[in-house]
Amino acid sequence: MGLLGCGNVGAALLKLIEENQVSILDRSGEELEVVSVAVRELDSVRPAWVRRELLTDDPMSIVQDPTIDVVVEVMGGIHPAKELIEASLRAKKSVVTANKALLADHYFELEELAEEVGKDIFFEAAVAGGIPLIRSLRVSLAGEQLSRVIGIVNGTTNFILTRMDEDGLSYDVALALARQLGYAEADPRADIEGVDAAAKAAILASIAFGRKVRFSDVSREGITKVTASDFEFARRHGFTIKLLALCERIPNNDGGAFDVRVFPALVPRTHPLGGVRDAFNAIFVEGEAVGELMFYGRGAGGAPTASAVLGDLMDVAHNLRFGTTERRIDRKDVVIASPDKLSSRFLIAVDVKDRPGVLAQVAQVFGDNGISIQSMEQIGYMSEARLIFLTHDSLEKDIAKTLGQLEELDAVRSLRQAMRVLGEEA
Amino acid sequence: MGLLGCGNVGAALLKLIEENQVSILDRSGEELEVVSVAVRELDSVRPAWVRRELLTDDPMSIVQDPTIDVVVEVMGGIHPAKELIEASLRAKKSVVTANKALLADHYFELEELAEEVGKDIFFEAAVAGGIPLIRSLRVSLAGEQLSRVIGIVNGTTNFILTRMDEDGLSYDVALALARQLGYAEADPRADIEGVDAAAKAAILASIAFGRKVRFSDVSREGITKVTASDFEFARRHGFTIKLLALCERIPNNDGGAFDVRVFPALVPRTHPLGGVRDAFNAIFVEGEAVGELMFYGRGAGGAPTASAVLGDLMDVAHNLRFGTTERRIDRKDVVIASPDKLSSRFLIAVDVKDRPGVLAQVAQVFGDNGISIQSMEQIGYMSEARLIFLTHDSLEKDIAKTLGQLEELDAVRSLRQAMRVLGEEA
Repeated sequence: MGLLGCGNVGAALLKLIEENQVSILDRSGEELEVVSVAVRELDSVRPAWVRRELLTDDPMSIVQDPTIDVVVEVMGGIHPAKELIEASLRAKKSVVTANKALLADHYFELEELAEEVGKDIFFEAAVAGGIPLIRSLRVSLAGEQLSRVIGIVNGTTNFILTRMDEDGLSYDVALALARQLGYAEADPRADIEGVDAAAKAAILASIAFGRKVRFSDVSREGITKVTASDFEFARRHGFTIKLLALCERIPNNDGGAFDVRVFPALVPRTHPLGGVRDAFNAIFVEGEAVGELMFYGRGAGGAPTASAVLGDLMDVAHNLRFGTTERRIDRKDVVIASPDKLSSRFLIAVDVKDRPGVLAQVAQVFGDNGISIQSMEQIGYMSEARLIFLTHDSLEKDIAKTLGQLEELDAVRSLRQAMRVLGEEA
Repeated sequence: MGLLGCGNVGAALLKLIEENQVSILDRSGEELEVVSVAVRELDSVRPAWVRRELLTDDPMSIVQDPTIDVVVEVMGGIHPAKELIEASLRAKKSVVTANKALLADHYFELEELAEEVGKDIFFEAAVAGGIPLIRSLRVSLAGEQLSRVIGIVNGTTNFILTRMDEDGLSYDVALALARQLGYAEADPRADIEGVDAAAKAAILASIAFGRKVRFSDVSREGITKVTASDFEFARRHGFTIKLLALCERIPNNDGGAFDVRVFPALVPRTHPLGGVRDAFNAIFVEGEAVGELMFYGRGAGGAPTASAVLGDLMDVAHNLRFGTTERRIDRKDVVIASPDKLSSRFLIAVDVKDRPGVLAQVAQVFGDNGISIQSMEQIGYMSEARLIFLTHDSLEKDIAKTLGQLEELDAVRSLRQAMRVLGEEA
């Protein structure tokens, strides 16, 4: 085995292999030998179990080494990871990768190349870290008609939202806390703007529905606009707020259209996703026969990710020994559903001037657009007031129209929030 | 494919195959042809998709049919299921089974026979129905050193306990309700006495730890002694009560001993298992590298079980095409930990005569046995009183001794309850 990259995940993998060599052999009959490890800086300080004599700063030497039959890529980034993986496959080596950014855009090319050369590309670790999700979707649930996959797949944002919920922190303070504790990076944009979650959503949708879903197919909204007062309202009504990655088959759509999105949403506390706290991940799966499933665990971190890579490695080793590969999916192009067809329940909050007739005016706009209200609440603030509406299931295009018209009302100071609500009405 | 048995699961499987033939082919490249279905009564009324011309009342005809390469056993019971599976393997057919009672006692023989003949025996559906647990443990987590698997694996008892918790029902009424709604069988003993859960615990422990664990290795206690007042106490202290199947590697034990048990326990409501309601199943897995994982879903029912069987079937079909098999585990004999070494927190409730000095007497017994109390509560009932103790982590043998001595105290009317508490102390 050759390893490309030796950061958190790579080092954790080497430790795991060293500590568990015996049980790996017992449980699989395979012996894993680490032949070479490519790093950027040969002289960086590394843990003791990263043996100096295995290191090289020439990743191509691994790709070209005829004694290596599996390449593990944990260096991250698109380039040169993509070129190295392609060269490895062409050199008839199977590949295990944890690289979600790469897979989100180049999954199908790499999958097709692997098929062409008769080797495997495995990537359990790329989505939801140590949670055995990808293999479950690909193999165990292969016979299922899946209708929906909806998950909390980004630990950083879930940590921030959990602290806002449980400790009443503002968004800024929760983000600062996440940075200090190492849950958020110095530049947290990929997490808080939903980029990381969208990459995972593209991969999940591709696997779950057997379609080609790319990063660019995923619409996304981050958590930067979620406020402490959104949480106050959510708490009072039995909700919490989560950043969700949604992959959905639109029912009754002849063409077989799909909706793949990332957005913050109100989630009922009684929903299994409502109790997923801090940096944990969870993925809720709905299938025609199997009903509701949920997978829960640590979505990031060196050791959990390395655990998933090791599982893949042992599976690849088994396939190599028998000269077989993972089964292939005849993958169709995806049709993304027109936003006009989508509907959801919504929470809408508007700050208005507190004077007679305002509520009637605002309510009129909802009515004019055919939006029906499930519950409403008014909170007074001196001469101002905030109106909070929870709608029944509504077409998103009608909601958009409503929001536009509300903003034009003289009595409306500002539109505070418009957020989807997960789950059917009780 | 030949099918042995056509009850709930068998009929659901035939429906699933018929409805999803196209997507099965798309997603796996395999075509599943149902050649023959063995039933007890040819003339029973069956759903339309169970084609009359496929039925036979001679299961051996399936085993002997050279055109059949996979046998699916969903007839249940030990005999003749065991003989039919053995004969199928000897006839070089791979086997998919959902038969937990059979596997709990004969898993290793069947596994060894499968290895001998070079075929597969798959059984994802035998534990936790449609939840992709077995393959996750066998393949995805193959590189993990698992320390603990703890689950709610019996839907009937979880339904009963949920109704007692949420509706304040007595045990008897909740059981009657479960029967009426079809969650409990006319003879519910296998469920309420923990027999079904113990069979699943044996299978789970075998897979998770690579050991040979048999049904007889599993100690068990059912839910028949759980009372409404246990739930009252549990609720007041932030717990609910669940029937747990526990498979644990005893830490710091040189011999590598294991504890495999089924028992009702107090579970903190904040624990992921605390929110698993009604007939749902959930399995909590702890590994050295991967940390905490949970799998959640429908543990029984025709369609979810059939979904798991279909996933296995497609995996077997893939292996048959490539002439390979699932990897084998070099399985060691299990050493069951001596109960003397086990410890837990306990809830202990005693009814006492309400007179001066009783509390001191009772407390003395705890102290004499080295049991330290975390919290205590006294509820008065006229001239009687109930004392409820929550202990710190205590050796089970010390608890047993304490209970024996308490029962002999003149002031103690009766020992009401002694129940384990899940989780470390906060």
